[in-house]
Amino acid sequence: MQGTWRNLLAWLGLPAGRLIPAIIQDAASGMVLMLVDLNQEALELIAATGRVHYYHSARRKVVAKGEASGHFQDVVEIRLNCRGDQLLLKVRPAGGACELGYQSCFFRRLTPEGWATADPKVFDPEAVYPEIAFSH
Amino acid sequence: MQGTWRNLLAWLGLPAGRLIPAIIQDAASGMVLMLVDLNQEALELIAATGRVHYYHSARRKVVAKGEASGHFQDVVEIRLNCRGDQLLLKVRPAGGACELGYQSCFFRRLTPEGWATADPKVFDPEAVYPEIAFSH
Repeated sequence: MQGTWRNLLAWLGLPAGRLIPAIIQDAASGMVLMLVDLNQEALELIAATGRVHYYHSARRKVVAKGEASGHFQDVVEIRLNCRGDQLLLKVRPAGGACELGYQSCFFRRLTPEGWATADPKVFDPEAVYPEIAFSH
Repeated sequence: MQGTWRNLLAWLGLPAGRLIPAIIQDAASGMVLMLVDLNQEALELIAATGRVHYYHSARRKVVAKGEASGHFQDVVEIRLNCRGDQLLLKVRPAGGACELGYQSCFFRRLTPEGWATADPKVFDPEAVYPEIAFSH
């Protein structure tokens, strides 16, 4: 994997200080896992490691997906939209993407009674993220 | 379909003037088609019609996906992320989503030589959108 995306920054040409949204999709199942923002540092780290990194707006810094959980995501394909301002990253995830214990952050489905959990839990978040206060 | 999403605004509680990003995914194939922003008006129109509407930032107004092309997208499932600030809309599209003639706006794939068209064209954009200048 390493080196595959080394020209990502050159081909993307993201202006300094700008963010580009990136949809993270499971390459095998097609499940949409997350929607994150990337900055230049995150793109550099993706290019260098082949793994998803993103700008964590609440923590105001770039994080490696999986740095706390071990649920890294290897990038297997990078796609760009027609306007050149959005990315789609197809990944091979090492575990559930959502800090609440689900494969995908989009685990709630709208029903006539409101939002209902539609997916099974795939890990115990309190065991995987003991340091995080589950406020959301 | 009509009426299925009538409580969308109540359950989402989007503050006036705010936008929420929405990933549009083909419900059958799992293909990610577009990433758009929704405002309150777009949510109301989705709830009223069962079809994708979104805030078109360049035109500064809400448009119905397919209003020019006939490539409407019927919403078959609505999902919300863990933080409650992003949507995933699974749709049944009546035709290609991208104004450049492709099924998905994410039709370009990063290769060592740069961005390469990775998907076949599914319609002729000049026949479907005669009034649009293809500047992007």
